[in-house]
Amino acid sequence: MAQQHLDPTDPTAGPVAGDALAAYLRAQATEFLRALRQHREAGGAAAANGSKEAADAARALRRSARRISGTLHTFRPLLDEGWSEGMRPELAWLSGTLAREHAYEARLERLLAALHRLSGSAPAVFPAQATSEARTEPRAEAGTRAEVRTAKAPLTVGAAKAGALLERQLTLARTRAHSAALQALGSSRFHAVADNVAVLASEVPLSAAATATATTTATGPPPGPGLRPLAAAAEERLRDAVTGLPLITAGHPYNSEALVHGLSTDTAPQPQDAPWHQVRLLLRLHRYAREVLYGDEDLVDVRILNAGQALDRHRDAAEAAAAAASAARTPRIAPATAYALGVLHADQRHEVEAARFMFQRAWTRETVGTP
Amino acid sequence: MAQQHLDPTDPTAGPVAGDALAAYLRAQATEFLRALRQHREAGGAAAANGSKEAADAARALRRSARRISGTLHTFRPLLDEGWSEGMRPELAWLSGTLAREHAYEARLERLLAALHRLSGSAPAVFPAQATSEARTEPRAEAGTRAEVRTAKAPLTVGAAKAGALLERQLTLARTRAHSAALQALGSSRFHAVADNVAVLASEVPLSAAATATATTTATGPPPGPGLRPLAAAAEERLRDAVTGLPLITAGHPYNSEALVHGLSTDTAPQPQDAPWHQVRLLLRLHRYAREVLYGDEDLVDVRILNAGQALDRHRDAAEAAAAAASAARTPRIAPATAYALGVLHADQRHEVEAARFMFQRAWTRETVGTP
Repeated sequence: MAQQHLDPTDPTAGPVAGDALAAYLRAQATEFLRALRQHREAGGAAAANGSKEAADAARALRRSARRISGTLHTFRPLLDEGWSEGMRPELAWLSGTLAREHAYEARLERLLAALHRLSGSAPAVFPAQATSEARTEPRAEAGTRAEVRTAKAPLTVGAAKAGALLERQLTLARTRAHSAALQALGSSRFHAVADNVAVLASEVPLSAAATATATTTATGPPPGPGLRPLAAAAEERLRDAVTGLPLITAGHPYNSEALVHGLSTDTAPQPQDAPWHQVRLLLRLHRYAREVLYGDEDLVDVRILNAGQALDRHRDAAEAAAAAASAARTPRIAPATAYALGVLHADQRHEVEAARFMFQRAWTRETVGTP
Repeated sequence: MAQQHLDPTDPTAGPVAGDALAAYLRAQATEFLRALRQHREAGGAAAANGSKEAADAARALRRSARRISGTLHTFRPLLDEGWSEGMRPELAWLSGTLAREHAYEARLERLLAALHRLSGSAPAVFPAQATSEARTEPRAEAGTRAEVRTAKAPLTVGAAKAGALLERQLTLARTRAHSAALQALGSSRFHAVADNVAVLASEVPLSAAATATATTTATGPPPGPGLRPLAAAAEERLRDAVTGLPLITAGHPYNSEALVHGLSTDTAPQPQDAPWHQVRLLLRLHRYAREVLYGDEDLVDVRILNAGQALDRHRDAAEAAAAAASAARTPRIAPATAYALGVLHADQRHEVEAARFMFQRAWTRETVGTP
């Protein structure tokens, strides 16, 4: 990505704030347009089911849409307000619509892999697997996702029926999400978004504050907020949200907290998950803000990376657990199917708990320091 | 307990080996006879359901029967072989028969408490509970077992039905176990055991080796195995068995190992649990051997205590998980009931995993050293 990097040690960095921001947004907009072209070339809008190329292009579209949207949010005082306020919900709509198909597919894969693991037949992957300690149980070799799904595992009737039910429900949801994504990509609403992104690729509408900063440094009024204070504010929002998480509990292995509502009468998403999901979004905004400041990939903070992976796992497991619970409410299923779905639900809620533990470990490894 | 303590620093301790062993066995036999008298006075054999006094007496009976049996095993070269070989299976039969009623009761309590916890309404007790960190969820105050069972929790239909089913099945099993225990205590087989214990209370049948040691220390043939080598051998068997446990895996929180057969077609007890159960028995033998050497309660090794508690929890959770799985195989149950039992099964298997983690922490806190 050809973009100007901001030197964090440069005390005169303020005036170039607008420039660095504009460069980042231009680069992401260019990525967006390239992905859109790829998606069209892959026949994305025509294919009944997405090809690999179309799926990759859709992922790239989502990736840059998220980054543009996040950047407009974090650095909004530096951008034309009306323009960026109008653009953000449209980008959120687009990336949300494009994400759903992939999410259903990944959820089904996760649940089927778990069903096989719980049947003692599929590869379980965890940190200790590589060790050579004595085992009382033979363990299958780690395999690929494809192997997991095609493994000739001796599933119980319940596990097999649960798998078939989940496959039916999530495949239907995925097909619908695919159609919705295709429809969205052909809509005039999408074309308006694409037109706006095309504008962004050539001319970033900076605010008066951002351009003023560049010309009145020495003599005029005090410069408006620069890049770094805005990025620091994004980090501060992240830190604040993390402070609200029950990290002491999460740091105690096997605290049983995530399954506390495993059998509750409430069918709504677990309210205890919401602050974690919120931290996930704020961590993403923090990451994008760092990209604006320090470039895309050249300064990877392992801690932020691990924390982000833990929160992704948290979200995926929480949604998979909800899908298992929801499948169990299907009328007229066999008790064995329901039993398997119950085991599966609890298993995924324990994955949620494990992800929180992972996050706690990653986050508290060292205290946050602005580089 | 009035018993001679062996001074571990005394190099001439060998000759008194027989004496210390005899004193310990006499004391345990006296305890046994006292508990038996208490049980009769509490009307244990007449009551349809055990009173608290009868239950306490039965527990004390089991406690001394296990200690006598374990001591006969660990120190068998010092005891009359025919006599102790004949006595051990009888004591095992007795303590096994007496243990079952209590086990079913405790299992039901554990499962009902878990059902309430999983419904988000019952007190969950875990290490972090005492901390004052911010919580996103209100948490009930920790309560007693009785409170758990009488809490007016809004159980789902599935959880309530699962609880009722478990209550029915485990109460029936407990009632049968109670009858079997009463029948056993009235049997001629039991009277023979009690007669043998009465002999033990006055005259411990030491082997020729044990008595020879006491008289030929200086001049005769080398003394037979003393107390301490035999106790050390018991500890060595424990260490060996622990070496075979997958402790590296167990030390990784959330390794998902305990639920690996959560949905397997095999309805037999999980083979992965067996080595842990074996270590539990060997740890008990080690503990009793220490009692013979150093007295009953005056030298409590916290590490051994914690490790033992972890293994008790492991056994209890494994059996509760099996009971939930077994209840789910009841014909014609509702899907919601089966679902709740699946969640419960998985929850208890995670308790199994948590107990292994606890054991790993307790055991590796410091290496074993013969005191």
